[in-house]
Formats: sequence, C-alpha cells, structure tokens
Amino acid sequence: MSSSIQKQLIFVTGNVNKLKEIKEILSDTFTVVSRKIDLPEFQDEPDNISAAKCREAAKHIKGPVLTEDTCLCFNALDGLPGPYIKWFLKKLGPSGLYKLLTAWEDKSAYALCTFAYSTGNPDDPVKLFHGKTTGTIVPPRGPPDFGWDPCFQPDGFEQT
Amino acid sequence: MSSSIQKQLIFVTGNVNKLKEIKEILSDTFTVVSRKIDLPEFQDEPDNISAAKCREAAKHIKGPVLTEDTCLCFNALDGLPGPYIKWFLKKLGPSGLYKLLTAWEDKSAYALCTFAYSTGNPDDPVKLFHGKTTGTIVPPRGPPDFGWDPCFQPDGFEQT
Repeated sequence: MSSSIQKQLIFVTGNVNKLKEIKEILSDTFTVVSRKIDLPEFQDEPDNISAAKCREAAKHIKGPVLTEDTCLCFNALDGLPGPYIKWFLKKLGPSGLYKLLTAWEDKSAYALCTFAYSTGNPDDPVKLFHGKTTGTIVPPRGPPDFGWDPCFQPDGFEQT
Repeated sequence: MSSSIQKQLIFVTGNVNKLKEIKEILSDTFTVVSRKIDLPEFQDEPDNISAAKCREAAKHIKGPVLTEDTCLCFNALDGLPGPYIKWFLKKLGPSGLYKLLTAWEDKSAYALCTFAYSTGNPDDPVKLFHGKTTGTIVPPRGPPDFGWDPCFQPDGFEQT
C-alpha cells in the first residue's frame, strides 16, 4: 500500500550485499534501486571523497541518491592505504598488504564504510553515515577470492 | 619582437622550479604564465590522472594549458605509492616511506613527472610528456624540509 507513495532512492553500488542490506534498512522510507554509474574517485580524506562522489552522482540522477565507499585503514600508517586500498590490493595482493606492515608492531586496522546521501538538490548538504569494523591485518589465509578479506581478521573472530 | 605574437600558455603549478624550467624550454613558442587553480586529483594510473586534470584545467582556462604531476614510484610495490605519494608523505614522513619497504630487498624507485598539455579545445586530445629519474629509497638524511627528497637518492648521486 505505502509503496505507491514511496520515493525512489538510487543507490550507486556494485556490491550486491550492500544493496540487500540498504534495501532492508530503508524499506519503510524509500524504494531502493541500484544503478551503475561511472563516478570519479578523488584523492582526499575519506569523508571528502565520499561527499564529492555523492555530489557528482546527484548531478547525474537529479533525485535522491546514495553512494558508498569502503576504505581499509591501517592504524600504523595513520589510516592509509585507506581510500587507496583498491590500488594497493590490485598491485600487491593480500600478502603484500600484510608485508607493508613488517616494520610496525601495530597490525591493527579498520574497515570504514561511508555512505553518502544527497536529496538531489545541489543546495542541500550531503549527509554522511559511517560503519566501522575494527580488526587486525594477518598473513593471508582462507579463500583468496574476495578483495582484502583474506588478510583482514575482524576483532572477536578467529577467521579472516 | 616575436613575443608580441606569441600565444600565452597557462601553466598550472605550485612549483617555482618547474615554472622556471618550462619558461626556458618554451620561450620560443609560448609566453608561459603560472596560475593557481584548484583542480581535482583523481585516483587512477598516473597518465589517466594527468590527462583528466589537464582536461579540467582546460575547461577553466579555455585556452592552451599545461599541468604537471609528480609521482614517486617504488618498484617493489609495482609503482605505488605513485600518484598517492602526497598522502603517504603527509602521514608517514620520509622515514615511514623507507619503513614501508622493510620486507622487500628491492629499494629501487623512480620519480615520474608527467606534463599534460591541452590546446584548450575539448575536442583535441591531451598530450602527455614524461620525465623520469631513477634512484633508491634510503633512510632519510639531509635537510628534512623538501617533500620526499630526504629519502630518495637519484642514481649516480651519493646524496639524497
């Protein structure tokens, strides 16, 4: 019944699990539809990157839009590779990510997921929401097929 | 005499030494003027980042424009930190850059300077020119006041 008056929210993501989660969370408020748009990824601090990407998405969509970014931040490296983790994973693999920390005792890290929401009106500020999972960078183990999962062990778990 | 018919070329740089060099190199063809514009820095391979930045600059300037980017690429890290060196230097300092390579025997690196030129016409392709200086990442020494200079020793030199 209520769905007929629900606003549509475009979620720009390539991640099917995030899409599923967001659909459930926002089901009372929005009909969430995913869309693949090529958006620029800037260099900056994570919040600024997310806000800029969402503003670009809003320019395309001209309506409510949600974007997401995931960083993997090493505490010993003051948050790096952070937003650049994609490039480090691509060039070094999970084993290289672990090797990067060889000289540091602190192997702690956190996965930072930033969602950015724009109403579609360029005058409205972009709203940011964060999800953070703390953990440790470990020698890679387990299935090597999903991103940096093999070398990131969330706190409270014995598995990567 | 000839300067009155020379075309003006805007060089977007904050680097006074590069400006001086470029002025000399292009003095027969262009009157080079520097301009500070805030241009987006994208995440990508170095050539793509440089071309995208130059296209953005050309949109502002609407005339001949030259931009420059400098990367510091570690061979052991398949070219990284590369275009992200600014962030790594900011967060880790020269000593942290050296520490990153602890697990790798290969400490070789190269500084890659990419100049990108646009005629100002968005239909013309951006032209790229490269300068490359090979060297080694060493424990920091010498004056700590200029970027990553303290930890980069160019080949054929005994000093950083």
